[in-house]
Amino acid sequence: MIIDIHGHYTTAPKALEDWRNAQIAGIQDPALMPRVADLRISDDELRESIATNQLAKMQERGSDLTIFSPRASFMAHHIGDFQVSASWAAICNELCFRVSQLFPDHFIPAAMLPQSPGVDPASCIPEFVKCVEQYGNVAINLNPDPGGGHWTSPPLTHRHWYPIYEKMVEYDVPAMIHCFHATGAHYINADTTAFMQCLQGDLFKDFPSLRFVIPHGGGAVPYHWGRYRGLAQELKKPLLSEHLMKNIFFDTCVYHQPGIDLLTKVIPVDNVLFASEMIGAVRGIDPETGFYFDDTKRYIEASTQLSAAQKHQIYEGNARRVYPRLDAALKKKGI
Amino acid sequence: MIIDIHGHYTTAPKALEDWRNAQIAGIQDPALMPRVADLRISDDELRESIATNQLAKMQERGSDLTIFSPRASFMAHHIGDFQVSASWAAICNELCFRVSQLFPDHFIPAAMLPQSPGVDPASCIPEFVKCVEQYGNVAINLNPDPGGGHWTSPPLTHRHWYPIYEKMVEYDVPAMIHCFHATGAHYINADTTAFMQCLQGDLFKDFPSLRFVIPHGGGAVPYHWGRYRGLAQELKKPLLSEHLMKNIFFDTCVYHQPGIDLLTKVIPVDNVLFASEMIGAVRGIDPETGFYFDDTKRYIEASTQLSAAQKHQIYEGNARRVYPRLDAALKKKGI
Repeated sequence: MIIDIHGHYTTAPKALEDWRNAQIAGIQDPALMPRVADLRISDDELRESIATNQLAKMQERGSDLTIFSPRASFMAHHIGDFQVSASWAAICNELCFRVSQLFPDHFIPAAMLPQSPGVDPASCIPEFVKCVEQYGNVAINLNPDPGGGHWTSPPLTHRHWYPIYEKMVEYDVPAMIHCFHATGAHYINADTTAFMQCLQGDLFKDFPSLRFVIPHGGGAVPYHWGRYRGLAQELKKPLLSEHLMKNIFFDTCVYHQPGIDLLTKVIPVDNVLFASEMIGAVRGIDPETGFYFDDTKRYIEASTQLSAAQKHQIYEGNARRVYPRLDAALKKKGI
Repeated sequence: MIIDIHGHYTTAPKALEDWRNAQIAGIQDPALMPRVADLRISDDELRESIATNQLAKMQERGSDLTIFSPRASFMAHHIGDFQVSASWAAICNELCFRVSQLFPDHFIPAAMLPQSPGVDPASCIPEFVKCVEQYGNVAINLNPDPGGGHWTSPPLTHRHWYPIYEKMVEYDVPAMIHCFHATGAHYINADTTAFMQCLQGDLFKDFPSLRFVIPHGGGAVPYHWGRYRGLAQELKKPLLSEHLMKNIFFDTCVYHQPGIDLLTKVIPVDNVLFASEMIGAVRGIDPETGFYFDDTKRYIEASTQLSAAQKHQIYEGNARRVYPRLDAALKKKGI
């Protein structure tokens, strides 16, 4: 079985974007603020938006199940106040839940949190609880920079974030660290920054079972693995294998063969999880290969370093270990 | 000949740091503001700070000449106003110039600019002119984020920066893009951001001969080369080989063999320049190899992908092409 741990609902019907634009207008002029009930998207519309897009590509490329979360570039936690974020997260999470109900064999949801700059992360707990208990979410996305690009929040190792971590540990769900910025630099930089914050701190002493998935192949980290090993040594931290790698995992959203080869050479196979972020920011065909840039399964398949057992780990085994609620859901179905 | 294009004066006598601390105190209380003339560092002190550190390691490792600039983590352009930055840059540049005079076979200077947040970059031109014309500097360091971590300046492709670019073209000197932050994330992120800004813009149409050196192996860029090729395609830009790679170069400050192997596999050899950033942030010995993390020459030597001619290009040929004033200085000596 091939599990893609990183997919966003980037193809939602346009009504969603229209509602969001109305909500943003409503921040200035409360008369324009839409009600949650104003958004109406039918099951047929949801079905079509998935069947012709993500699901079609999954079947074409041969992946089975996607951990599916709201569109990252729509999260925009810095827009409006907590109430704005709360309504928006509720709507987006409900849509991903509905997709998972419509295609239960192919999508399982991960939640966006109603983070808001300057607001206690504990305010996110009710949405988190609902998503896990009622919607069957197997993970959350955590934005380390809800201020939107200026890095004004405390680092991820700060007690500021502990209410969320306590709930993650209680529910045994991992967080994907994911900022909302749509550009090619911010995503990658947030990944690298998240890793460096963890390196400098001792978060996993307080939460030995906490798990972070750093997407986009870990940002710059595997390429600079020697630098980070060396920095940990300068800071008198344990070896990264002890200090971080029981708790931090990287996905395979790296869109060329040499990058995947580096990732799987440098990072222990236990810490690498299959993902494509399809349909995401890079939708084209690589003229050098004739295949989609984001068809990351091809790179894993073509790897000459990985054994069949290791490929299985990356495709399925690690995901079932890092996302125990996903494993439980599959087992319940006899898979 | 082996040219290291990326060394900082991280080992300056303590008097320099004391002067800087006094200057910072003087921002609050003008009575404490030191005069430039108050800083006295003798030639013997300079000599010792280099001979026992950078030069000793260069000789041990077998590199010949370092392009030498003020300590990046000391630049701190966000501290104080333009006058503070101007005095500080003048002092730091003079020290690097003096080092180059004391060890003319081993060090050649690159200038720090007196950038200051919100101040027109044209204000940097007098220091730039002095460093090139009087001190023989062969390059400048350009901080894309003089605000100090919050990315409040316009992107590097904005006309805001053009006065500096015009002077770079006139003098035919490249800029190393270098922010001041000392942590493992900010450096790497600034590198990645600089590349992405150039990718999104069309700067090199306006300045076909402008050259940027992106340090630390290009940040995350080579690891995510497929992503950046794909993003350029989404943005309807030309192939990166046309769009950026006549103007952007990466150094080899990547502190492990698999990273260097990726860099030299993915990025054309014409665009890779030898560097170590010794003595920098990572000073230890890699327990996996028994050698210094930042002894990057070992990784180039050990490369099985690079021919002897390509290694020569990385060690010397590319540096002489990208830094024509360095080439001229060497030719003047008959090298």
